[in-house]
This record gives sequence, C-alpha cells and structure tokens, in this order.
Amino acid sequence: MTKPHPDTVTANGRDYCWPDRPLVVICLDGCEPDYITQAVIAGVAPTLARFCEQGSSLNAECAMPSFTNPNNLSIVTGVPPSVHGICGNYFLDPERGEEVMMNEPHYLRCDTLLARFAEAGGAVAVITAKDKLRTLLGKGLQGICFSAERANELTLAGNGITGVLDRVNLPLPSVYSQALSEFVFAAGEVILREHRPDILYLSTTDYIQHKHAPGTAQANAFYAMLDPYLASFEELGAHIAITADHGMNAKTDAAGQAQIIYLQDWFDRHLGSALARVILPITDPYIAHHGSLGSFATVYLPTGTDANAIATELARLTGIESVLTRPKAALELELPADRIGDLVVIAERLQVLGTTASRHDLSGLDAPLRSHGGRSEQIVPLLFSHPLVALDAGKRWRNFDIFDLALNHRRPA
Amino acid sequence: MTKPHPDTVTANGRDYCWPDRPLVVICLDGCEPDYITQAVIAGVAPTLARFCEQGSSLNAECAMPSFTNPNNLSIVTGVPPSVHGICGNYFLDPERGEEVMMNEPHYLRCDTLLARFAEAGGAVAVITAKDKLRTLLGKGLQGICFSAERANELTLAGNGITGVLDRVNLPLPSVYSQALSEFVFAAGEVILREHRPDILYLSTTDYIQHKHAPGTAQANAFYAMLDPYLASFEELGAHIAITADHGMNAKTDAAGQAQIIYLQDWFDRHLGSALARVILPITDPYIAHHGSLGSFATVYLPTGTDANAIATELARLTGIESVLTRPKAALELELPADRIGDLVVIAERLQVLGTTASRHDLSGLDAPLRSHGGRSEQIVPLLFSHPLVALDAGKRWRNFDIFDLALNHRRPA
Repeated sequence: MTKPHPDTVTANGRDYCWPDRPLVVICLDGCEPDYITQAVIAGVAPTLARFCEQGSSLNAECAMPSFTNPNNLSIVTGVPPSVHGICGNYFLDPERGEEVMMNEPHYLRCDTLLARFAEAGGAVAVITAKDKLRTLLGKGLQGICFSAERANELTLAGNGITGVLDRVNLPLPSVYSQALSEFVFAAGEVILREHRPDILYLSTTDYIQHKHAPGTAQANAFYAMLDPYLASFEELGAHIAITADHGMNAKTDAAGQAQIIYLQDWFDRHLGSALARVILPITDPYIAHHGSLGSFATVYLPTGTDANAIATELARLTGIESVLTRPKAALELELPADRIGDLVVIAERLQVLGTTASRHDLSGLDAPLRSHGGRSEQIVPLLFSHPLVALDAGKRWRNFDIFDLALNHRRPA
Repeated sequence: MTKPHPDTVTANGRDYCWPDRPLVVICLDGCEPDYITQAVIAGVAPTLARFCEQGSSLNAECAMPSFTNPNNLSIVTGVPPSVHGICGNYFLDPERGEEVMMNEPHYLRCDTLLARFAEAGGAVAVITAKDKLRTLLGKGLQGICFSAERANELTLAGNGITGVLDRVNLPLPSVYSQALSEFVFAAGEVILREHRPDILYLSTTDYIQHKHAPGTAQANAFYAMLDPYLASFEELGAHIAITADHGMNAKTDAAGQAQIIYLQDWFDRHLGSALARVILPITDPYIAHHGSLGSFATVYLPTGTDANAIATELARLTGIESVLTRPKAALELELPADRIGDLVVIAERLQVLGTTASRHDLSGLDAPLRSHGGRSEQIVPLLFSHPLVALDAGKRWRNFDIFDLALNHRRPA
C-alpha cells in the first residue's frame, strides 16, 4: 500500500519528480573523479565498475568555494550559495562582528528539497559523518537525521530515530577515521532496509582523501569498503546517485612540503598589523585533516583601502590564481555578497592560503598536505547506478543538479 | 689534470658558473610533483627521499604549452619559446604551408647552453629517450648526443660516440616502455663513469606517467627503477638536478571516459567545413600514449573572421579554460607569434581538445587517458641533490631556471 503523494515537488524554483523507488544520494567528501577511476582499475570496486559501465557518468562543477558545507547545502537545495547563503564552514558574521562556524540552521536562507519532499508526504532520511552538518541539512525536515559522530546520542525529537547504534553492527567511530564514513553507509543500509525512505541522503568525511592520493592502497581501500554497501542498496531496490562536495589535490612540492602563502602576514606587512582581516572558510574544529589550509580565502580590508589596487598587487604573488573584489566574486562565484569580505583570494592548484605562520598548527599532518577550496578542485563526479536520458549535451552540470538528474532524467520504467 | 676553462659561460643573456663537479640534469617527462612525493611516501625511492630532505626542492612553472619539445628546449636554452621558437611537437609551418613535426634543428632560433659549454671546452653529453628530441637538443653541440631509441645506430660523426649498446647491460628498448627511460639512466651511468662529462643532460619519456597516477604501484615502480641510478650518479661524484617538461592530470570522468572537445568539428559547424584549421601541437608519431589528445590547441581562422568574437563564443563551452587571440597568447604565454594560429585554446584540468572525432584513434589507449598541455600541468618539480643558497624568496621559478639554480646557487665548497 503506497501513500498518496504529488507527482512533483518544487523547491527553490526547481521541480523534482517523485521517486519511483528509494533514491540514495551520496556525497562522497573530497571525491576527485580519479579516486573512483583508480579504484575501478585496481579491481577493488566491482559495483562502482558496474555503475560506470551500465549507469551514467558525468563530470560536474561544484559550488565555490570548493568546501564541504557550501556544497552539501547546494546539493540539498539545488541552488548556489548566493541563494542558500552557506558560503563556508566558517565566516565573519557581520551582525555579531565575530568569526563563527556557519553551522546554525538560521544561516540557511532557503528550504531544502529534503524538507519539501517530507512535507509532501515523503519519507526522508539524512545521515552525515560529522555532526556539524546535521543541523543544517536537517533544517525544517520531518524525518530521520543524524550523524555517525553522535550516533550514540539520538533522540526521537532531535533525530527522528533512536537505537541506531544497536542496529548497526559497528562500534561508534572516531571522528578521525575511515570508520566514520563506513558507519554512514552501514547505518544507511539499516535505515533503507528497515524504514525504506523515499530519499536517503548520505554524506561522508574526507579524512582518507586528505591523506591519500587516488589509486594508492589506502584510497582504494576506502572505495573497496564503500562498494558492498552500494551493492546492498541496489539489492534493496534503490537507485543510487553519487557526487562529491569538492575534489582534492596535493598542495605540496616534490618533497611533500606544503606550499603556503600566509595572507594575514602579507596584509600586515602591506597595510599595517591586523588592519585587514583574513578569513579562511575551511576553518573547522577538526584540523588534523588539513591544518585549516585550503585554496580559498576572503579578506576584509580597513576602511578607505583601494580594493582594486591591493587585489592587483596580491594577484602578482607566485601561487595566487586570482583575486576578485566582492561584487565580482559574488557574481562570478555565485556567493552571498553580505557574507564575504572585500576580496576573495583563490590559490593555484598545488598551493594553499594561511593566515599567519604562527596560527597554523601543522603538527597533526602525518602525510603531505592534500586539500581543496579552489577552482582546481571544482570538478567532481556525477555517477548514477541507472542510465539517464534526455540530457542536454554540452551543459555545464553542477553537483547540485544531482537530484534533478536522478529524478527527472531517469529512464521511464 | 683539469683543462683550463672560463669561470662562466653565457647563453641567451644568462651567465652560468662552470660546474665544480659533473652536473647531471634530468628532465623526467610528465613528472607531476606528486609522483616523487608518493614514491617517497611508499618507501621505494630512498635516494629521492634523501634529496627531498637534504637537498633543495621547489615548485616551478614549465613553459607553455606544457608539452615535451617546448620544455626540453627551454631547459637547455634557459629561455621561453618566444625566444627559442619551439612551441610544440608539431605545427603549421608558415613557410611551407603544411603541418610538420618541429623536430628539425633549423627551427631552433638560439643556441643551447649545452653547445656554449662545449664551445668553452666543457665535456657535454645528452641522452634522450626518443630520437625525436635528439637533433634539437644536439644543435651545434660538440659532444655526445644520442637517444635510447636508436642506441644501436650510433656514429661518431652523428652522435660523438659509438658502442653504447655494448657497454649498457640492457637490451635495446621498445619505444613504448618504461625500459626506454631506464636505458637513458643506464647509459647515463656508463657515460658518467667512463667519460666524466662536465654536464650530462638526460631526458626520459612519459609512457608510464600517461598511464599511471602518482602513488599507484606502476608509477612507484618507475621511480624505484630510477632511484639506484641517482645513487650511482652521486657515488660517481655528480650533483643531480631534476625537473620535468610538464605535469600530468587525469582527463576523464569517474568512469574513466576521456573528456574531449572536438574543436575542428566545432569550427566546421560554426564557420563552415574545413575553413578553420585546428592544430594540436601534442601530435606525435607515437600516439599510443595519448591519442594526440592534450589540453592545448591553436587555430588558424579563415581571413575576415572576427577572432575576438569567435574566441568569446568558444570560451563559453563547458571544459574550455581560456581562449587567447594570437597577440595575447604570444605575450602572456611567451610564445612565438609567427608559429601559432589566430587563437590559442586551453582546456580545463580534466579535459582535452581534439580535432574531429574521426581523426583520433583511441584504440591504443589501454588505460583511462592522462595527459597535459594546459595551465593545469604547468607546475613541475625542481629537486636538487645538494642544498641551494641565496634564493630569491617568492620568485616565480621556471623549469628552465634549473641550470642557473644548480650552477649559480650551489653552496660554496
């Protein structure tokens, strides 16, 4: 007996057909396309190999900055940060005048399509690796929503479910582990089997991808871990759609030394100490992955500074790919103008941006730095278990087209 | 007994101190910095690990286009293609009106520093993997100059040496093999031991790098093969300096499908059949590596075409990173204006450019396409066995600074 439901659901101006079977959408954190290619070549991911051969595969652009929160929110809203407002993990809140994590749901400026499907009578479940994403993704959602990190603290009121840890045959994972992502898949399997949601959104952590290059034994082991879960989702009758929040590149020289431009130090020398304020939106309480070093920064300039002149000067530095003033950045990168600084700075592919040398603790990095945030990490996979139809050839796909593609371009049954 | 020699040698406006011991400069074809980093992490390259720790390491920009011939010639002349004239493996010769390989020495517009050192009394030896580079690198050179590919055909008049194959304990290698590069190192070891040149230039082939990602078993095996030769060069008293002609990136989606824009097809649709002429400077008789697919193309437009208008239109295509008109390309990319078309087209990191679908034979590709040619493959390693001194911090290093760095910035004995 199926419940009545509308044919389509609308969210943020986009229409989505109702799923004809459970749809599992997976955001594989930091999944540069080559991670999948290499795991398939290595023969450790037969289900992914089957998707590559029998389903559909596209390259797509993620939202800028190529960080976790902006992209997870783009994926579940179908729109860029200029609309949903989440333009970093961390920002300078203009109302409070202080730097804060952008994890609170009130920062999200639109509804999620997940909440809209649930409103329309759909069963929706969301499982994240870290808890920091859970409250944003779950905004307004009547459904199941929890993180692997806090799977031992679930309440019916807060998470729409309890007792997950007992049903998943895995211990509560460490936040710095591949096991955190594995728990997401294992819990997803339990939820899919026992609750059969119309939409299941799974979001992992890039702990492995920050440390290990595509095709290395450790990276392949991550995809080998994932693969049987995908097979299981299929056996349970689901369609599966996979994308990433961002890619990943080495940020080092041949010797494995991180290539860092300390922007706050540069501005302190050029404009005077602590007059400009450099914000790194990658900043996160979990710094062992990347030492808060990414390829994107935004800068608040002291009143009266000529933003264009300083942008031109900064853009000349070796390793800087581009410097955009606020209006240009808002337009070209689809960012909310009121939540970025006077300048947006993007580093080259093998380069990252820091604040001051003294503020970055790199002692937690036990492998040569790999990170993201720039244009060079913008291409991510779109991989579907089932073939898509009626695609517009040559279109610039975005990772936040994934629900549109999976629901509106599936082959008619 | 040392022969008298000048303190410095000048080539193309740059001065080079005379080597105080044999200097081995190695151009590792397609050596994205991460290949070295990953081989060191994997523990298969102890000599490279020692260079990383005790020598000097920098990231540098190669010359554009990021192809083999332009960069090998930049390295041995110390200047960009705008000066030396070699801007591709292949081009439209304006004098002959036909597309030809750019391998003939008369295309080279300046002297090499190798020839200048030899003129000043230095003993110079050059060993390349493929023969196509030999004649260009050996232009005007009184010294040893041969390729692994034709090591069985040496003449004293043509190569300055004979009998190499008898002295190298390896069979004549196949042109499609890692063995072709290994032969370069093995022959280099013989030459260094028996002839003790002041300068030994070794240039490999990217057969492995076109097929295998950094950190994979096969890529690591290449660097493991190289490593004992480096140790041997050091034991023989040489300083070693390593760079690359270009980096390397996957040019595929997650499914390993090559991401190709067929430019000639696009121009044929937009301007009429065969009116524009798309040239791919990666073109090479050895196509099994890459099917002549790279991330750089140049286009000759029919007379009367508005180059700016068509550039703007082309730049909108998904996967195109930039389109420059001839004067802008010549200036910004340091290219010889008379040897490029009306437009220069650069593709994005995971994207390549073709002519027409029918003209590319991809049947030789037995692994997902990896290639180069674009801005995204411009960063290459500069790795020295010995520590450098008096470096200008923040300078934009080029791979063709390698002789300057090795000879003029060595620590005084």
